[in-house]
Amino acid sequence: MKRYEQVVQTLAQRIEQGLYRVGDRLPSIRSLCHEQGVSVSTAQEAYRRLEEAGFAEARPRSGYYVLPRTTPSVLPRVSRPAQRPLDVSQWDQVLELVGGPPDEDEMLMLGRGIPDLGAATLRPLQRMLATLHRHVDVRGLNYDSLSGSRELRQQIARLATTSGCLLHPDDILVTTGCQEALSLSLRILTQPGDVVAVDSPSFYGTMQILKAQGLKALEIPTDPQTGISLEALELALEQWPIKAIQVTPTCNNPLGYTMSEARKRGLLALAQRFDVAIIEDDIYGDLSFTTPRPKTIKSFDDEGRILLCSSFSKTLVPGLRVGWMAPGRYRNQALHMKYVSTGASATLPQRAVAEFITQGHYERHLREMIRQYQRHRDILLGWVERYFPADTGVSYPQGGFLLWLELPGGIDCVRLNERLASERLWIAPGSLFSASGKYRHCLRLNYAAPLTAAIEAGIKRVGETVMAMRDEQAALAG
Amino acid sequence: MKRYEQVVQTLAQRIEQGLYRVGDRLPSIRSLCHEQGVSVSTAQEAYRRLEEAGFAEARPRSGYYVLPRTTPSVLPRVSRPAQRPLDVSQWDQVLELVGGPPDEDEMLMLGRGIPDLGAATLRPLQRMLATLHRHVDVRGLNYDSLSGSRELRQQIARLATTSGCLLHPDDILVTTGCQEALSLSLRILTQPGDVVAVDSPSFYGTMQILKAQGLKALEIPTDPQTGISLEALELALEQWPIKAIQVTPTCNNPLGYTMSEARKRGLLALAQRFDVAIIEDDIYGDLSFTTPRPKTIKSFDDEGRILLCSSFSKTLVPGLRVGWMAPGRYRNQALHMKYVSTGASATLPQRAVAEFITQGHYERHLREMIRQYQRHRDILLGWVERYFPADTGVSYPQGGFLLWLELPGGIDCVRLNERLASERLWIAPGSLFSASGKYRHCLRLNYAAPLTAAIEAGIKRVGETVMAMRDEQAALAG
Repeated sequence: MKRYEQVVQTLAQRIEQGLYRVGDRLPSIRSLCHEQGVSVSTAQEAYRRLEEAGFAEARPRSGYYVLPRTTPSVLPRVSRPAQRPLDVSQWDQVLELVGGPPDEDEMLMLGRGIPDLGAATLRPLQRMLATLHRHVDVRGLNYDSLSGSRELRQQIARLATTSGCLLHPDDILVTTGCQEALSLSLRILTQPGDVVAVDSPSFYGTMQILKAQGLKALEIPTDPQTGISLEALELALEQWPIKAIQVTPTCNNPLGYTMSEARKRGLLALAQRFDVAIIEDDIYGDLSFTTPRPKTIKSFDDEGRILLCSSFSKTLVPGLRVGWMAPGRYRNQALHMKYVSTGASATLPQRAVAEFITQGHYERHLREMIRQYQRHRDILLGWVERYFPADTGVSYPQGGFLLWLELPGGIDCVRLNERLASERLWIAPGSLFSASGKYRHCLRLNYAAPLTAAIEAGIKRVGETVMAMRDEQAALAG
Repeated sequence: MKRYEQVVQTLAQRIEQGLYRVGDRLPSIRSLCHEQGVSVSTAQEAYRRLEEAGFAEARPRSGYYVLPRTTPSVLPRVSRPAQRPLDVSQWDQVLELVGGPPDEDEMLMLGRGIPDLGAATLRPLQRMLATLHRHVDVRGLNYDSLSGSRELRQQIARLATTSGCLLHPDDILVTTGCQEALSLSLRILTQPGDVVAVDSPSFYGTMQILKAQGLKALEIPTDPQTGISLEALELALEQWPIKAIQVTPTCNNPLGYTMSEARKRGLLALAQRFDVAIIEDDIYGDLSFTTPRPKTIKSFDDEGRILLCSSFSKTLVPGLRVGWMAPGRYRNQALHMKYVSTGASATLPQRAVAEFITQGHYERHLREMIRQYQRHRDILLGWVERYFPADTGVSYPQGGFLLWLELPGGIDCVRLNERLASERLWIAPGSLFSASGKYRHCLRLNYAAPLTAAIEAGIKRVGETVMAMRDEQAALAG
């Protein structure tokens, strides 16, 4: 056995014995050399082999991390929603979630779309907000300009180059969260009764916009690794008078996939051929686990066909309500819709975010969060493997902080939530993510905040409850 | 001549000689007794007579103030808009205003709807914002509950009793400014193509909502003192399928009138008879010059027919974007529309406003502002009398900080603004306030902030330019 093979064996054993747990950082090259008395090249070779064998993963500028024993062996199935436009339902369930249960503070909310708000790298934002508000002048509390703070739009344009976009600050419109950007986009492109094609499962916020605006959702089959099916979309475009395509192609919510560049280009080509606009929700895009972050579809678009929508709600904090859109050729309509929707956005939060970015804190915070979320993903995958039925389908997120589970045996997650309520636990039932309440056997989990023992215990209880429900079903059937 | 008559004569002479100027406070009863060597009852009688003669006005807990030499002798005419539903135009002009001219800071904006942001009584708000942002916890930057901060809704409900409304905090929904409240209300009540009856002239923000939502405006003749014509509205309701009535019945923008309680009840009775909802914009209502403030139409409504919309943008500051609505029987739809429009509103501004109110600062600030705005109204009326053509029609605002002028001889205020631009002056042309660009011969002025010599010079230049344009017209005609 060669020297590096011995080192690989030692490390693999430690991982299997649980000395290094999923998501842990393995010793640095230097300390491995020291500990094992080997050369740098031997240590490097050992890690390369360990990586090949699927035990660990290299992360840029950080080191090697323990992967879950297996990356998910059972993926969720490709979705097969109804192949016709549907009216959207499910508002009551969404309201239960966003209206906030009265005792939310005492519930362990395991499925919400909220980032880690306790991160140390967020602290400068708090400082800037405090300073701005202490030294606020009259201008700071007046109406801002309709398109938003120029400083912030300049920073957004600068950051957008990392996703391949060349935007001028005037191409950008600051909005009240991404939700307003999505809502304005759909109002620009559609009239009540129109059909909108969506990936499926799809963010419930968008679904509810369709409902409120009297639109019909045409849910397109979507692969949990490669994204919306271009083949199915093409058929749909041939068959239905689709007015807009709404997708979240990068760090998808809830599935976590990122569409490949080739498929993103393919989607754009389809939109061009059928002369349809695309609403591209990129709210999780900056939280991709790959460096540099993946390109947006917008970056391939030279006709202004794509309305890119995003915000700082997932990358920084939601409570400032600072979002933005790059509406392409629809800029004038977007300005008008923005004016009638809420007027100019609040001034000081925009200035605080602009300063946070300008001083380099945003990129630092992103790096930290991406490391954390990737580590947490692996830990949560390990817990799901440990505590859920073996044939549970699990997504493998390429970014963001959301995991999607597909439960075996048709377990109903709305009923699951009802049972969990008595234990003060809450998961996001999959039915929220469909126009017509499909995916009731699926659920979404959040792994953003530190994965405490309380959260592990919560996840364990969810898994146990799922297994109990399955056993009850089996008993009934038997 | 009786003793009090001599005192009246003395005071009247001083006013006519300009020793006391319009808007000045006259000597207190005590100092008048001292100065003139008269008894308290004589001084009181003198002021009563002076008031009857229209020289002065008593203001509660403050004293007697000099009125303009004549309260406006020429009022604007009752509006006679087109008697059929119209598509709304004028977006370009509104965009010019709200988009913010690039050099706005160097322009003297004489017609915007902005309160005095320099008021000393606003300072506690700044302190609270700074403190909140310094001590912000994680919860403070998370999504708030969809209907808004409970503390703020409690305070709004408490304040609403002064306008005769008994509201429960759950009847209230916090919005992103009043604009969002109005926008949601119209989306709840209408579909594209529907007809909405509006007072006329009417706030351009509402007009633009109608435009964006594909609605038709039916502008109802409106009296500059008594408000929307109930007779004309009744005819319109008989003739057209009106889906909503949109009015600003208290401290109207731009006309400044407050409808009497009897007429407000009459309006509600019409809405009941024709089973139509009313959207009541009360954004300036708390700035009424009468104490207690006038009742809202909402206060007479026991069926939930009225969607009351307001905000703190005119009473405190616009840049926080804290508005609210009491949507009556439409609460569920309003929650849904709010969710899809912008999601939960920003958290900390709501908490700051709630604290400002709770600690009694709001009522103190209002008292101060009402005194200031009333004094400013009189001063501006005096300037208009001095610097504008004698037959200029002028409104007589009962609250708020906006004055409406109707120029004689068909002077075009869009052209007026073009000429003023070279002198870095800007007024709000009346055409903004109509669906189809009527009222081009009218303009709106703002008297909120301290009326400096620069503002007086600006008003004077506007008047001179108007007279120059009139002379040019006469020369052309001759």
